[in-house]
Amino acid sequence: MLGGGFVGLGAARRLAKAPVDVVLVDANDYHSFQPMLYQLATGLVDTTAVAHSLRDLLHDQRNALVHQATVSRIDLERREVEFVDMPALEYDYLVLGLGATVEYFGCEGAAEHAFPLYSVADALRLRAQIVRCFEAADRDPSLIEDGVLNVVVVGGGPTGIESVGALTELYAGDFTKDFPSLPVDEARLILVEAGPELLTMFKPKLRAYAQEELEHRGVEVMLNERVAKVEPTRVTLASGTVLPAHTLVWGAGLRANPVAESLGIELGHGKRVAVGRDLRLESHPEVFVGGDIAAIAADGDAVLPQLGSVALQSGEHIGDSIARVVAGEDTQPFAYKDKGTMAAIAPGAAVAQMHGGRTMKGELAYLAWGGVHLTLLAAWDDRSKAAVDWAWAGVTHERSGRILVGQEAER
Amino acid sequence: MLGGGFVGLGAARRLAKAPVDVVLVDANDYHSFQPMLYQLATGLVDTTAVAHSLRDLLHDQRNALVHQATVSRIDLERREVEFVDMPALEYDYLVLGLGATVEYFGCEGAAEHAFPLYSVADALRLRAQIVRCFEAADRDPSLIEDGVLNVVVVGGGPTGIESVGALTELYAGDFTKDFPSLPVDEARLILVEAGPELLTMFKPKLRAYAQEELEHRGVEVMLNERVAKVEPTRVTLASGTVLPAHTLVWGAGLRANPVAESLGIELGHGKRVAVGRDLRLESHPEVFVGGDIAAIAADGDAVLPQLGSVALQSGEHIGDSIARVVAGEDTQPFAYKDKGTMAAIAPGAAVAQMHGGRTMKGELAYLAWGGVHLTLLAAWDDRSKAAVDWAWAGVTHERSGRILVGQEAER
Repeated sequence: MLGGGFVGLGAARRLAKAPVDVVLVDANDYHSFQPMLYQLATGLVDTTAVAHSLRDLLHDQRNALVHQATVSRIDLERREVEFVDMPALEYDYLVLGLGATVEYFGCEGAAEHAFPLYSVADALRLRAQIVRCFEAADRDPSLIEDGVLNVVVVGGGPTGIESVGALTELYAGDFTKDFPSLPVDEARLILVEAGPELLTMFKPKLRAYAQEELEHRGVEVMLNERVAKVEPTRVTLASGTVLPAHTLVWGAGLRANPVAESLGIELGHGKRVAVGRDLRLESHPEVFVGGDIAAIAADGDAVLPQLGSVALQSGEHIGDSIARVVAGEDTQPFAYKDKGTMAAIAPGAAVAQMHGGRTMKGELAYLAWGGVHLTLLAAWDDRSKAAVDWAWAGVTHERSGRILVGQEAER
Repeated sequence: MLGGGFVGLGAARRLAKAPVDVVLVDANDYHSFQPMLYQLATGLVDTTAVAHSLRDLLHDQRNALVHQATVSRIDLERREVEFVDMPALEYDYLVLGLGATVEYFGCEGAAEHAFPLYSVADALRLRAQIVRCFEAADRDPSLIEDGVLNVVVVGGGPTGIESVGALTELYAGDFTKDFPSLPVDEARLILVEAGPELLTMFKPKLRAYAQEELEHRGVEVMLNERVAKVEPTRVTLASGTVLPAHTLVWGAGLRANPVAESLGIELGHGKRVAVGRDLRLESHPEVFVGGDIAAIAADGDAVLPQLGSVALQSGEHIGDSIARVVAGEDTQPFAYKDKGTMAAIAPGAAVAQMHGGRTMKGELAYLAWGGVHLTLLAAWDDRSKAAVDWAWAGVTHERSGRILVGQEAER
């Protein structure tokens, strides 16, 4: 298994009783719960609420071994994986779940200065940046006019919406109390979306609700706008507008892990590895691909979206498929069960759209969002920690994580 | 107030109702609970259990402001503090609680390669180092013979004892389960002490008990030995013995923060600032000094030790003294209340010595140690988090913090 995300872990667990040796390799020694990274970035939860030791998750599974190493190349013909920092491994079956990296669409300066939000390290870097900006303004208030407290968030999808929503809460709550001498309420939080609407995968009335809720909380929503250039203290839009902001959060796009390109096969949508309903490479049926790195065929010409639920279900399906193949049976086609989509804007404000078309918004949707995420987390056994952090924040409206240990660790 | 440790925070809180403006400045934006740093280093608790936002701790105190800035120089004559990164501040009264830094006693290579344990950043660096060594051995088992899994701990005081004790627990528990292919039980944990006994501030029978308990857990205790040279993968002792170890934990000595030397006054024991029982500089009675940076006069020629309890009590006394001076009253002499000393070796094994001479060891001492530390932590409001982490570890014997986020954040 390459990758310790939902795909690799899901597949490994489904193989617990199969007569196989499972070797799971990831560049990090932890599994991260990506749907909550924005909460780590805004200090609502701790690192351990969203990152869990892979060895810990698998050490009771007798047929599983974990290595922390970085993949450099996959040789499909020799059935061998090469690593930057470890001898090569041979395989009988390969599970490819290496996820994605951030796509900047050629935006100038974004790779150097933007803050993406795809990994735990990303979230910690963003958290340190925001606190560092406030501490700098506290020491030198002349920076405020230069935009040190302003944040531009790019992308009107769930990542962008949830990030900017969490920032409004952080600014209006803790930061207003923590920095009594700073004009926190004058700081600008700006959401930039290239299309004409937010949350396009939701129904129109939920899109409008999300925009209203954000604007009600002081967010400037800029639609039909693209970021042309990112500099350390300035963001220039394609329309020519220059926004003074020292922080830009990039929640606008993903592309497959570049390892996909080392396969030497033709890639599909978004340079992802194209697989059919059995999640195998047509040319190499011993290779299974799932999650963000895969372009999984759906109805018509469509492929499934890069969502946590697709990754988890595809990983579990791959585990079951390998068990069947090893037992001499045929694989079954993968059928993604869309259980609905949700996005949380702020406490008491969320949107949810169930499979079948039922929608929810507001307080009830927020409670549902919390319930679904706690349930998902529970699968990885971190429920109690996240619940404690959340309950603590709910009662006291304070966040324990908004300190600069990250910055210090970077020195 | 310079320093957001026990001294600065204790003094600030005692001044909550005084007609003064309190400005607290620390190089970090958090208060750290130093007695538990070794638990952070060995993954038993999370960062937020031992580090708490200073702004959060003081934002309900109306007369207090917090700045994150680094002191460069103190001008006693002009009553002004200069900072590396902020304009200078003038003061009517100064509280000096800048603590200490690590003293390597001229040991070659220690400053470059040793892992001290005085700050939160130190603890996170040590934690990352230990996990990194295990992951490296997992990828390349030939490193084991080179000592990649071995740790040398320097210093037979509480810091050294508690650190090496926690390492035995980590190695025998989680690491044995997490790295089933590594010979974890063959790893060497070595405690080096320059004197003839461990824990010299305790009574002889407790010293012997501590040594027995450590040896029972597999620690090699080397007495009457000094470290002469530290290299990345080797530790050379003064006797000529070379220990193969990639990690050396330094728990052997402190010296006052070098800012003390910028004062232009004669320094006392360990280059600390000498103060009398009123905790003021004789030449500048508007300057109060407490905690690890101070050499506080005790009986005879003695000075009080560099302990958390001395720091906290001296800080609170300084706060009360300033309130008295502002109200036109005389200050009172500081009387340190020695409530006893404790050190935890491992779960169920600790030593405690009460004021008056009563001693405890074993299970009961461990429970007392836990109770005292939870009570101390409660003062800073993090009790619930530490309690959850401890209870969690107690029930499952697993630690949530042993992952390499620190390393990744350092990249």
